[in-house]
Amino acid sequence: MMEVYLDNAATTPVSENVARIVVDTMTREYGNPSSKHLKGVGAEMLVREARERIAATLHVSPDEIFFTSGGTESNNWALIGAAQANRRAGNHIITTSVEHAAVLQPLRFLEEAGFSVTYLPVDAHGRICIADLKAAMREDTILVSVMYVNNEIGTVEPVAEAGAAVREWNRSHHREVLFHVDAIQAYGKFRIAPAKLGIDLMSVSGHKIHGPKGSGFLYIRKKAKIRPLILGGGQQQGMRSGTDNVPGAAGLGEAAKEAYEGFDQKVEGMRSCRRRLMEGLKEIEGTYLVTEEDESVSAPHIVSCAFQGVRSEVLLHALEEKGVYVSSGSACSSNRKSPVSSVIQEIHLKKELRESVIRFSFSDRTTTEEIDYALAALRELLPVLRRYSRR
Amino acid sequence: MMEVYLDNAATTPVSENVARIVVDTMTREYGNPSSKHLKGVGAEMLVREARERIAATLHVSPDEIFFTSGGTESNNWALIGAAQANRRAGNHIITTSVEHAAVLQPLRFLEEAGFSVTYLPVDAHGRICIADLKAAMREDTILVSVMYVNNEIGTVEPVAEAGAAVREWNRSHHREVLFHVDAIQAYGKFRIAPAKLGIDLMSVSGHKIHGPKGSGFLYIRKKAKIRPLILGGGQQQGMRSGTDNVPGAAGLGEAAKEAYEGFDQKVEGMRSCRRRLMEGLKEIEGTYLVTEEDESVSAPHIVSCAFQGVRSEVLLHALEEKGVYVSSGSACSSNRKSPVSSVIQEIHLKKELRESVIRFSFSDRTTTEEIDYALAALRELLPVLRRYSRR
Repeated sequence: MMEVYLDNAATTPVSENVARIVVDTMTREYGNPSSKHLKGVGAEMLVREARERIAATLHVSPDEIFFTSGGTESNNWALIGAAQANRRAGNHIITTSVEHAAVLQPLRFLEEAGFSVTYLPVDAHGRICIADLKAAMREDTILVSVMYVNNEIGTVEPVAEAGAAVREWNRSHHREVLFHVDAIQAYGKFRIAPAKLGIDLMSVSGHKIHGPKGSGFLYIRKKAKIRPLILGGGQQQGMRSGTDNVPGAAGLGEAAKEAYEGFDQKVEGMRSCRRRLMEGLKEIEGTYLVTEEDESVSAPHIVSCAFQGVRSEVLLHALEEKGVYVSSGSACSSNRKSPVSSVIQEIHLKKELRESVIRFSFSDRTTTEEIDYALAALRELLPVLRRYSRR
Repeated sequence: MMEVYLDNAATTPVSENVARIVVDTMTREYGNPSSKHLKGVGAEMLVREARERIAATLHVSPDEIFFTSGGTESNNWALIGAAQANRRAGNHIITTSVEHAAVLQPLRFLEEAGFSVTYLPVDAHGRICIADLKAAMREDTILVSVMYVNNEIGTVEPVAEAGAAVREWNRSHHREVLFHVDAIQAYGKFRIAPAKLGIDLMSVSGHKIHGPKGSGFLYIRKKAKIRPLILGGGQQQGMRSGTDNVPGAAGLGEAAKEAYEGFDQKVEGMRSCRRRLMEGLKEIEGTYLVTEEDESVSAPHIVSCAFQGVRSEVLLHALEEKGVYVSSGSACSSNRKSPVSSVIQEIHLKKELRESVIRFSFSDRTTTEEIDYALAALRELLPVLRRYSRR
């Protein structure tokens, strides 16, 4: 049986080079970067090199890259750190109603602490409207947070326009509202230049780009006012304490470099898989594409689709039996009680389809042969499952 | 040239098994534990097994173990999470004046947020007095935090007595004051039973016990009231969100198991090294042991010593040239400006010795041959360095 992993938005296998670098670093450069002797210096050099590699992919300065334990910590830090540091300037935050739980939950915590949060509505594709953002801006707004790519349906939010709107507001109102972008599903899939996009803070996770789990970073624009979330020995310019995860950083640096090597070809490969899957899905009866077909406004690696008359968990496990791994909603928050994700609720999908949504997600390793295999499995399984569920 | 790594309190090399398990997990079990398909289930099993292995070393329930990105996050979470969750009961916290920066800095943050912190004084060995703790307890006390082993000089704090005092206070005053222990330098060196010691929260780091960097855990006693520090998808019972670092957890589980296998023999090995080093140091002119000789009140793996007439950094680099790696003060906070650590300031060491302190720290792999080599290097170097520094 073929094994077809189409759950890359949940997590990706580490690349061979990343695995090799992690284990090499672990065994050979085991020093503490804060140690003053050679063992420390060697480890410190690896961390510095990783930071430089990442900075190069974003065209930013290496000292604007801060390693974290992953995307969730990055988001928590960006939101809580920025809110607390700018409280004197106001207590209003603007975000979208389709953010990942790692953004929504810290915001809920901030609401309990007295901050006020505006959740921008989205259209049928899960996209905010810039006019809504502009209308939501207030004198006491201190932070705007918009995700780059929606993790469940692949919608690209108008990040550049949002950044421009925040910048324009700051210029005309003499304010310093910060703009945070959760780029966890976008990094490695888009060329991102934070400075050009007006981004002050940007969250990235390692394990979504064939890097190590437990690795990630937060980009912090040089003059952005934010306080540390994790305090202690003063590592990383005093902004993120704790002994550097040297193997994690080195692995992440390699993964970042690899993600942007032969970038256009990799993205085109994912887009080909996306086209092929979408064409195939449209030919199957009772399928409703949730993800937009327009390639200019959606990520290359995510296809969300509803299958009428089949519960997503049932289909997920049937596909699993065929060696095809997919996701129902977002793996990152599969512990919640409701079987329907908040994003699916926001996009006004017909009620009878909401519990029938499956997410297929690719990496640069996914092949069109794998897509064909998955489509064949679907064509075989769906009639059977539908017959069964009608009984 | 022999290479003698005597900086194990800063960090340790990963064990061979840990490295193997990390890379195996990374490449074979790359799934997201939150995914519902087989790839997720396999990863989830590894995390569960790691949690069970750790719980077994502490005689606690696996669902009292929460993985973090390391000791610093564990300490931040314990202190900030407990303080915020118990604010209604009071705003007073008690700790010692010799804690690690990963405890002191979060407490400083809490002071800025309106909490009041009492820093217990220490005696010449850096040890608190239980009478002082009892005297410091107030009606509005909500949290007591005492380190198990001091990271710079190896002093063991009276943790059991402190735990008993907190429990007695809770009983007689109908309170629920929490007792946190930073056990980062103690785990793997002492048999620790949190329940028996009255510990509610306990921080542990992976890379101090031949485990992976970027791994650690917080023990949280079942009914201890604490809020999460990092919010999001609701992983780990909703207490620590973010995709589980599966290789990190698996590696930490293995390291924990190994640390307590043949435990008595390993500790005796470290004690032998400690005795041999202390005997040797005493025979060298102008050396002042900072660490207590009494084995019943100090850790098996740390020896701190002042060398009259030589600055610690000079000696550190001279030893490095001989392949001997040691530390001046604590590597974990070597970024601070003052060359003298707060612990050394607290213990009333003669002023002229304060900038001449070197920490030697062992692991279960350190041999007495390595100690002899280090002593020989010291005997050779010290007269030369002293002559040089007098000029």
